Amino acid sequence: VSYDGSEYHGWQSQGDYASVQSVISGCVSKVVGKDTVVYGSGRTDSGVHALDQGCHFDTSSSIDPERFAVILNTLLPKSIRVRSSSLAPEGFHARYSTMSREYWYLIKESGSMLPFDRKRVAPYRALPPISLLSEYAGFLFGTHDFTTFASARDQSLSRVRDVYVSEWETIADAYGEPLLRYRVAGNAFLYHQVRSMVGTMAEAAIAGESAESFKARLDARDRDKALRTAPPDGLYLASVSYDADKYQWFEEEYGR
Amino acid sequence: VSYDGSEYHGWQSQGDYASVQSVISGCVSKVVGKDTVVYGSGRTDSGVHALDQGCHFDTSSSIDPERFAVILNTLLPKSIRVRSSSLAPEGFHARYSTMSREYWYLIKESGSMLPFDRKRVAPYRALPPISLLSEYAGFLFGTHDFTTFASARDQSLSRVRDVYVSEWETIADAYGEPLLRYRVAGNAFLYHQVRSMVGTMAEAAIAGESAESFKARLDARDRDKALRTAPPDGLYLASVSYDADKYQWFEEEYGR
Repeated sequence: VSYDGSEYHGWQSQGDYASVQSVISGCVSKVVGKDTVVYGSGRTDSGVHALDQGCHFDTSSSIDPERFAVILNTLLPKSIRVRSSSLAPEGFHARYSTMSREYWYLIKESGSMLPFDRKRVAPYRALPPISLLSEYAGFLFGTHDFTTFASARDQSLSRVRDVYVSEWETIADAYGEPLLRYRVAGNAFLYHQVRSMVGTMAEAAIAGESAESFKARLDARDRDKALRTAPPDGLYLASVSYDADKYQWFEEEYGR
Repeated sequence: VSYDGSEYHGWQSQGDYASVQSVISGCVSKVVGKDTVVYGSGRTDSGVHALDQGCHFDTSSSIDPERFAVILNTLLPKSIRVRSSSLAPEGFHARYSTMSREYWYLIKESGSMLPFDRKRVAPYRALPPISLLSEYAGFLFGTHDFTTFASARDQSLSRVRDVYVSEWETIADAYGEPLLRYRVAGNAFLYHQVRSMVGTMAEAAIAGESAESFKARLDARDRDKALRTAPPDGLYLASVSYDADKYQWFEEEYGR
């Protein structure tokens, strides 16, 4: 599923707030005629978007699994779209079967923000030099203790994570306007990790910080070495993979 | 200026509805400390967007003309952005000095619409074949009587207009998703002309209509030969040119 996170209090159902999960679960329940919970590959925070979130539900409905996408799209608000649906293999769980996640983060110089970028692209006071951003991103690739970039609210026992892809690119939108995209993929991420890495890279690059100084922030494993966390607006859960072989090359070359 | 037309009742001030013109005029009046009207290169309908609309106002303010962009952007809603500002030449009028206008129209297959396309891309039940669209678009290039594509509410004495550019392209958005864009430039357009041309091309191409049959619609100069007018959502006033030489080659080669 794809959703515009600016209209929801995140993926996860919590109290009275409209969450993506509660809206989708409500529609599925209506279609199958029974209270049904839809499980996602993981939470996304309030304001964070998804291009291709993975989710599943258990049902004894006789509706063709492939048809759920079309049926749900007639009931769902336009801010949530089901891109495709199919029968999951026995024992599949959208969260526990996830092998990797890829996020994208979009930024632009604030003076170049168009109305169409609101809540979808994060504005920075200046456009950070991509050469510097790329050097920083190279240090984040691989297996590291990401304590520097974990929110104080992260409750993981270990803060070591694998980052399979970490790169900045200049891309263009449908209007031909340039923007910067950070692409990062990993097995799992700490709470606020992507936004903290992006915010720190962007602020450091605007200030012209050397690659070595940036690396020292990661190596310090110290939350105080992170700069301002980037806002949720520019963040997209781009895709989720249930394919164990996709980053097999990483395991072979860099595996712990 | 650029604006998200989905939040306004068009460019032109009318009664109590929020129009782009009334919001910008209100901000300019506040900045210069005097009631001031901002004039645009032309109207855009309710729901139609602008990437680069041209406009002007008369003022005796001592504020540096280049600084108006930054100042106005601090007051304007994020759905309207001033992209740049400068001192206009003596006698300039945003509307009467306009030499050409360029519009873009974005379409997608409805099943591929993402939440981010809402009110910014027009959905069609199927993606029309671009080869056929391109053939149709070729017939619209040049000087023609566009009566077929004029709204019944158009009050022009002559319905002959010059079309300098008329082409379809497959482009990609910031998410890497493909969509079709129609680019059309001309000296001026009849009321609803672009939306009528796009809607007729799209519907005809989905139905697989021959290029000759499409051409017969234009040649008939008959409003009944137009198919359904495309919705405002996909339409953008992409740019306005005050340069008399820009399409000089057209005058020389195809001039009346």
